[in-house]
Amino acid sequence: MESKRALEEADGDVRQAQALLMQQGLAKAEKKSGRAAQQGIVEPYIHGGGRIAALVEINCETDFVARTGDFKSLAHDVAMQVAAMAPRYVAEQDIPDEEWAGLESEFGDRKKALEAVSLLDQPFIKDPKVTIRDLNKAAISKLGENVIVRRFARFEIGTDQPAAEAGDD
Amino acid sequence: MESKRALEEADGDVRQAQALLMQQGLAKAEKKSGRAAQQGIVEPYIHGGGRIAALVEINCETDFVARTGDFKSLAHDVAMQVAAMAPRYVAEQDIPDEEWAGLESEFGDRKKALEAVSLLDQPFIKDPKVTIRDLNKAAISKLGENVIVRRFARFEIGTDQPAAEAGDD
Repeated sequence: MESKRALEEADGDVRQAQALLMQQGLAKAEKKSGRAAQQGIVEPYIHGGGRIAALVEINCETDFVARTGDFKSLAHDVAMQVAAMAPRYVAEQDIPDEEWAGLESEFGDRKKALEAVSLLDQPFIKDPKVTIRDLNKAAISKLGENVIVRRFARFEIGTDQPAAEAGDD
Repeated sequence: MESKRALEEADGDVRQAQALLMQQGLAKAEKKSGRAAQQGIVEPYIHGGGRIAALVEINCETDFVARTGDFKSLAHDVAMQVAAMAPRYVAEQDIPDEEWAGLESEFGDRKKALEAVSLLDQPFIKDPKVTIRDLNKAAISKLGENVIVRRFARFEIGTDQPAAEAGDD
C-alpha cells in the first residue's frame, strides 16, 4: 500500500518513490524512538552464586509488549551483558566530558574506550558481531514500539562500581 | 569460661564481674564492626512481575558465613525491605547536609524523615518493632562476624530513583 501511494505521489518515478519511502521509514522510526516509554520491566541477573549481580530497567510503551517473550528475552540478554561485561554508562552521552582523557589512556583510544564502558556500544557477548544498540533496534523493529535501555546497576563483591542511569537517548 | 575469668579478675565481686563482661562484650562488637568485610552476596528481590526490583549487597568477613542460611535470610529480608519501602540512603551519614531541610518539610520532622529515607533506620516491614539496624546487629551477634549493608539499587518502572551507596558505616 505504502509503495503504491509513494509511486502515485512521485508520478510513477520509481527512484523518487524509493526516496519518499525511505524518508517515511526514517520519520516513523524517529517518531517511535521519541515516543514515551513508561512501561517495561526490571530484570536481574545473578552470577557466581551472588558474587556478581546486575539489575536493568528496560522500557517500552505498553504493558502488553512488556509481557511478551521477545521483550523479556531482550531484558535477560542485557542484564547478562551488564553482569558479564561491567559497562559503566548506558550510552556515550552519559560519559562526563572530564572522564574522556582518563578513559582514552586506560583503553588505548576513544573507540575502544567507548566499546568498553558504554553498554549500548558494547559487542553483545552472545554474538559479538552486533552491539547492544543493534539488539535494542531489532527489538524496536520487531515489537513495533519504542524500547529504551533505561538504567542499570551492577554490584560485585569486593568492588565499588556505582549504578548508571541513561540520559535522554 | 569468660564469666569465671571475669569473676576471678573482679576478686569474686559479682557486680564488678558483670561490668567487666559488658565492657568486654562491647569491645568485641566494636572490634567486629571495624573489621574488613570483603565477602558477602548480592541479592535481588523482584516484585509485581518486574515492575519493582531491588538489589542489595551485604558484606561479611568470610565466604563460609556468606553461604550460611542466616546470612542469606538477612540479605533476602533487606532486599525485600528496599523493594517495599524505597529507602533513599543506606544510613544517616549518607544523607547530604543540604537535603535535610527538604526532607524535614517533606516528612514532618527529622526523626520521621530519617525513618523514611535511611534503610538502617526503617522499621522492618515483617516486624516493625525492630529496625533494619537491629536486624544487622542481630546477624553480627549470631554469625560472629562483621556484617555490613553495603549498598542497594531500587528500580521502579515509571520512576527515577537513583541507587544508594553506603558511606563508611
